[in-house]
Amino acid sequence: MKIPPVKGTRDFYPPDMAIRNFIVDGWKKVSLRNGFEEYDGPIFEYLKMYQIKSGDEIVEQLFSLTDRGGRDLALRPEITPTLARMVNQQINALPKPIKWFSVPRLFRAERPQKGRLREFFQWNIDIIGVDQPLVDAEIIFTTVDYLRNVGLAPKDVKVKISSRKLLAAVLKSYGVPDEKLESLYVVLDKKGKLPADTFEQMLAEQVPDKETLAKISEFMQIDSIPELGELIDAGSEEFAAYNEIKEVLATLETMGVGDFCIYDPGIVRGLAYYTGIVFEVHDAVGDLRAICGGGRYDNLLRDFGGPAISATGMGMGDCVLEILLKEKGLLDQQVPKRQIDYFVACIGDIGNEAWRIIAKLRSMGYSANISYKTGGLSKQLKEASAQNANKCIIIGEEELKESKIGIKDMATGEQELVGRDEFFSGLDSAVVGTE
Amino acid sequence: MKIPPVKGTRDFYPPDMAIRNFIVDGWKKVSLRNGFEEYDGPIFEYLKMYQIKSGDEIVEQLFSLTDRGGRDLALRPEITPTLARMVNQQINALPKPIKWFSVPRLFRAERPQKGRLREFFQWNIDIIGVDQPLVDAEIIFTTVDYLRNVGLAPKDVKVKISSRKLLAAVLKSYGVPDEKLESLYVVLDKKGKLPADTFEQMLAEQVPDKETLAKISEFMQIDSIPELGELIDAGSEEFAAYNEIKEVLATLETMGVGDFCIYDPGIVRGLAYYTGIVFEVHDAVGDLRAICGGGRYDNLLRDFGGPAISATGMGMGDCVLEILLKEKGLLDQQVPKRQIDYFVACIGDIGNEAWRIIAKLRSMGYSANISYKTGGLSKQLKEASAQNANKCIIIGEEELKESKIGIKDMATGEQELVGRDEFFSGLDSAVVGTE
Repeated sequence: MKIPPVKGTRDFYPPDMAIRNFIVDGWKKVSLRNGFEEYDGPIFEYLKMYQIKSGDEIVEQLFSLTDRGGRDLALRPEITPTLARMVNQQINALPKPIKWFSVPRLFRAERPQKGRLREFFQWNIDIIGVDQPLVDAEIIFTTVDYLRNVGLAPKDVKVKISSRKLLAAVLKSYGVPDEKLESLYVVLDKKGKLPADTFEQMLAEQVPDKETLAKISEFMQIDSIPELGELIDAGSEEFAAYNEIKEVLATLETMGVGDFCIYDPGIVRGLAYYTGIVFEVHDAVGDLRAICGGGRYDNLLRDFGGPAISATGMGMGDCVLEILLKEKGLLDQQVPKRQIDYFVACIGDIGNEAWRIIAKLRSMGYSANISYKTGGLSKQLKEASAQNANKCIIIGEEELKESKIGIKDMATGEQELVGRDEFFSGLDSAVVGTE
Repeated sequence: MKIPPVKGTRDFYPPDMAIRNFIVDGWKKVSLRNGFEEYDGPIFEYLKMYQIKSGDEIVEQLFSLTDRGGRDLALRPEITPTLARMVNQQINALPKPIKWFSVPRLFRAERPQKGRLREFFQWNIDIIGVDQPLVDAEIIFTTVDYLRNVGLAPKDVKVKISSRKLLAAVLKSYGVPDEKLESLYVVLDKKGKLPADTFEQMLAEQVPDKETLAKISEFMQIDSIPELGELIDAGSEEFAAYNEIKEVLATLETMGVGDFCIYDPGIVRGLAYYTGIVFEVHDAVGDLRAICGGGRYDNLLRDFGGPAISATGMGMGDCVLEILLKEKGLLDQQVPKRQIDYFVACIGDIGNEAWRIIAKLRSMGYSANISYKTGGLSKQLKEASAQNANKCIIIGEEELKESKIGIKDMATGEQELVGRDEFFSGLDSAVVGTE
């Protein structure tokens, strides 16, 4: 009986797995060098945990399940609620600052689309307990450090940075009441994602007063820090938020990634929980979804029953990133091909000698394979090539008698005959990182 | 609102994550050097896929869920059905031999016990399309290669090897009818897991005929290959199976892991689908569950709608292994502690200089951190120690003016003043494996 995979999931055959590992390993490497420590939580949590952060509408987008005890659980659609739960659980014992990363596998019960699957991986970095904007800059720097490391340049991707705090203060100064802010955020977040006239129409529906509407439209069109500075009065509530974003951009300049970063008031982020700097990374052409997004969320730990501790973070999924890297040719260039250090080829009956050699090579840390088929030397060498072997060890009855082995360099084709014991004593097990 | 984690799941705080990474990375390293390629499948599959392999009773042990389209899905309790599905899907296109490994996250809706959680990781290695017993030996060698690599010795763990084919032939020769075999396997599998008298009683219930019972009991007590040879007639159906297991043990001897391996007729494996060599690894003391198990399953691909292709494999969970490694002190000895290459400490106001240095170090591949608190040098050095920094870079206004930096070796306490540019040009970005 043949059964298909579930729609919106992926099978990772070895070549696909090599791409996934390349992406995940890159995320981990950059996280570690930026001083983050790795954590993870369970694949499922209590369903109500996700309702706390995202409201009841999230239930629609979750894979939910019931355990034997009748408890309502859900496959995690994001790891931030788990992070908040874990940090709150051990808040007093954890060494500070909490500077953590994770690469969780996440799930969304949505209709699969380009760059959006039901099952995916997401790189998360978070710094908890530091409220300086410098730390928002560090989150953004770490994001760019990865993008740059994987070969993307400022001409390929842009970090668009804005501030929820600034937006809230500006909208308040224009007379928008507090209770209207959230629904307005949802519309403003669509600025870069919709045609200009559609956006203007939606905005007009939200803001009936013409004068206020004009002010908001004007603010949303300013995309340079100096221009923004002209608009904002020193001493106003907006001014502090403006200074924050200025400081973040200046720090990113200092850190050498200023050419990736721009101020963009169209970055609002739909979610209600952001409280300060927010940002997204987009491909320069702009035909893909956001590559990642993040920002400051100072109230989340408290919402999960913990203390009022500030936090800032970023999440980057693997699906859109992989599409972009493929488009730019960066996967073909960089994803390592399968490779074997040694392939052992046998001529005639040499008993168990080949297995003795293979076992010894592997124990010393070298990858080694052998053909399971009975076939001539040329067939075995072909199999060695197919597995991308660096070298072939060739043994026949003659070599066996003299305790020698032939070594063929698969790149140059050169072949030499060496003593078996000298060969092994000459091998350096340290170079491959074994103990 | 405070919400607990779901029972039987684990939170991986950074020290727990370090242990998990140590185990998973060890599995991956040993798989690669033994010539396996990595694959993975989705976390959930159609529920019926698991029923094909394990019957309807498996449904009880699964976390099942229904998607928006009303399809019955289940979180994977094992990856072998996914492996069979994936191989069948691409059977003609896949390069042979198929020698694959995976480290899937798996789920069982059971009551959590010591060494058995509802969510765990399992190392899987499989070789598909080769029916020689040599390949069963290779699966066992790879298993031992890991155990030995992680520091376990023959005094700590034993690979107990047996053969379903031998057992079937022997039982048939004793007159046990085919349709009784499966229920008898389930009882025989309990030999090492129950007190001797309980086992004998259960066996007697299965085998009413006294003479047959005596023969089976005798066979189940033979635990050496030479003794086994005396019992079995050359030319009989059992003889071929006996020769196979002899060959496997001899190959393991050749490969240098013979002292880990013994013949043990008590290894039967409960699952119906094994067809040849079967094995389990147990701790020598015998107070833990099996560390891993495996064997030949030549019919599974066909059962999943594919061709009749032979297969052999092994699965090792992380829970029992972690308990054993902890007991032996092997985690304390080997799991790497968190470590930072450089911690940048500032004296007085040096503006953005610290961030410039941090960014440069990270971009070159070195891990680097800074204190987010304002505090004196001694407080910063303490924080550097807490993060296990190798070196501290110390900069004050004086150093800044002269373009110098202080470097403090945190192990020796030695400190030197060097030019900032000379420091960076002297750093070798290659040593840390960055591009």
